[in-house]
Amino acid sequence: MTSMKCHKCAERASIRMRQHRLALCKEHYLEWFVEQTERAIHKYDMFTRQERILVAVSGGKDSLALWDVLWRLEYPADGLYINLGIDSEEAYSDESERYAREFAAERGLKLHAINVQEMYGETIPQMARRTRRTSSGRVKPCSACGMVKRHEMNRVARDLGYAILATAHNLDDEVAILFGNVMMWQTDLLARQSPTLAAAEGFTRKVKPFCRFYERETAAYTLLRGIPYIEEECPHAVGSKQLYYKDLINKIEEEQPGTKLAFYAGFLKAKEKGAFRELPDAARDGELHPCPNCGQPTTSAGVCAFCRSFNL
Amino acid sequence: MTSMKCHKCAERASIRMRQHRLALCKEHYLEWFVEQTERAIHKYDMFTRQERILVAVSGGKDSLALWDVLWRLEYPADGLYINLGIDSEEAYSDESERYAREFAAERGLKLHAINVQEMYGETIPQMARRTRRTSSGRVKPCSACGMVKRHEMNRVARDLGYAILATAHNLDDEVAILFGNVMMWQTDLLARQSPTLAAAEGFTRKVKPFCRFYERETAAYTLLRGIPYIEEECPHAVGSKQLYYKDLINKIEEEQPGTKLAFYAGFLKAKEKGAFRELPDAARDGELHPCPNCGQPTTSAGVCAFCRSFNL
Repeated sequence: MTSMKCHKCAERASIRMRQHRLALCKEHYLEWFVEQTERAIHKYDMFTRQERILVAVSGGKDSLALWDVLWRLEYPADGLYINLGIDSEEAYSDESERYAREFAAERGLKLHAINVQEMYGETIPQMARRTRRTSSGRVKPCSACGMVKRHEMNRVARDLGYAILATAHNLDDEVAILFGNVMMWQTDLLARQSPTLAAAEGFTRKVKPFCRFYERETAAYTLLRGIPYIEEECPHAVGSKQLYYKDLINKIEEEQPGTKLAFYAGFLKAKEKGAFRELPDAARDGELHPCPNCGQPTTSAGVCAFCRSFNL
Repeated sequence: MTSMKCHKCAERASIRMRQHRLALCKEHYLEWFVEQTERAIHKYDMFTRQERILVAVSGGKDSLALWDVLWRLEYPADGLYINLGIDSEEAYSDESERYAREFAAERGLKLHAINVQEMYGETIPQMARRTRRTSSGRVKPCSACGMVKRHEMNRVARDLGYAILATAHNLDDEVAILFGNVMMWQTDLLARQSPTLAAAEGFTRKVKPFCRFYERETAAYTLLRGIPYIEEECPHAVGSKQLYYKDLINKIEEEQPGTKLAFYAGFLKAKEKGAFRELPDAARDGELHPCPNCGQPTTSAGVCAFCRSFNL
């Protein structure tokens, strides 16, 4: 991509990271990427090699990269794939499941695969249509999808005794979420957004080891490692607010390189200093308690939103 | 501009405000604008008719509109014009002073006009060049200009016994400032940004009665009232971060009408609920104390930045 040289060996650089003033060849990039992940794991007290980790795997570049790195670092990490039943021209969910399964089989790793339709009788889009869930005024399955994934990830992690739930959110994801939370001043969400969310009240500890990588960096890792992954975006993501914010922030980043990392790191620092107060969440019905049906933590008055949605 | 009708009288509308779902003819717009200002004055406990007000007047559309509205509402408001000595192709400062003086003369209002060069021996650009003050890496007088204006506004208000200092910051200004403070997580500035900043430790109370008006609304008021004002922007504003943020936010607003007001109002609400903690300001040298030279409040170890800059 450039005629720059690797800062470590003078080979031709494969990637240049302006915000780090660093250019690296393929070999040293793959090494650097793994080291940086290990550094984030320590920096944010995510987990040790004595804790069993469940990686949420979608079949996309970020989650397969995360599983690959944890495997190379010899962390005891198994995968969880959730087939959401999303189709468009391509069988999006079945395709992505195939990538996740192939990745696990090649490395002899354990993948837990669950299928929402087989377990609960409906795909996510079917359930979203029936319950008329909307996002930004349109009937979109995105909020239903998020709710189901959170429920299932936590359920499986607890049922199978994993101490840690790892997701592959990258810096672009985190910054878009943060930007959205700030634009709406969702102070309860601001207070909760963190690379490591401690286990509490029936929730497994959640960690995001890639939270400081730009999306292009996780993409470069997956490509340079030669990991096959599903390249399509979820067909329902088109036109989402989050993609809109990502584009916008990418424009600021182009104008002022380093903005993304400064915005995210500055937020974490302000939080660490105690700049935000955790306030009671008005959107909550009440305190957290186990759902009388499934036992997962919920704030709903009756059964949890998940059980309600699937009429369980 | 549109073929819409005024919501109050069925005349042809002169302005449409999407965020308020409101369209008004000239007459009803001018009425509405004054009512809304009065409402903001009460909502944010800015001042009463018993308090003397000093309006910072630049000769631009916002500050002349503010002085005009306060005059029509019969608040005891005098003006303060600060000639900064800014020239480019046009004599920007002298031109803007002429607009301020004409406005005051026509209404028989009292204008205090001060001239930085006459009082302190140098124009703002001269002082900025000599002291090598920079903004965003370039030698720009903007930070020097802000510092001088804050110093002089507060000095004049205190010397002449005004209880209130009113500036004409509109919603676009406030949102751009807020956006910048958020992108850099300037938590001390977030804690201080407010429509009404209480008097404290040598500072006069500062208020922003236009903080909920879009820039196009203050512009429409000034135009429809037929008030002559300086149309040029300050020549040094070109390429500033604040203008960049304004453009960006305008793009979001176009996409999602109401974003600006929601962002600002949401921030004020979160603050009111106590979502932000005021933290000790690491950028400060120490506690506020009177400058040994001019008596204005400062946090500098010796004389204040203003006195230092002009070698006073």
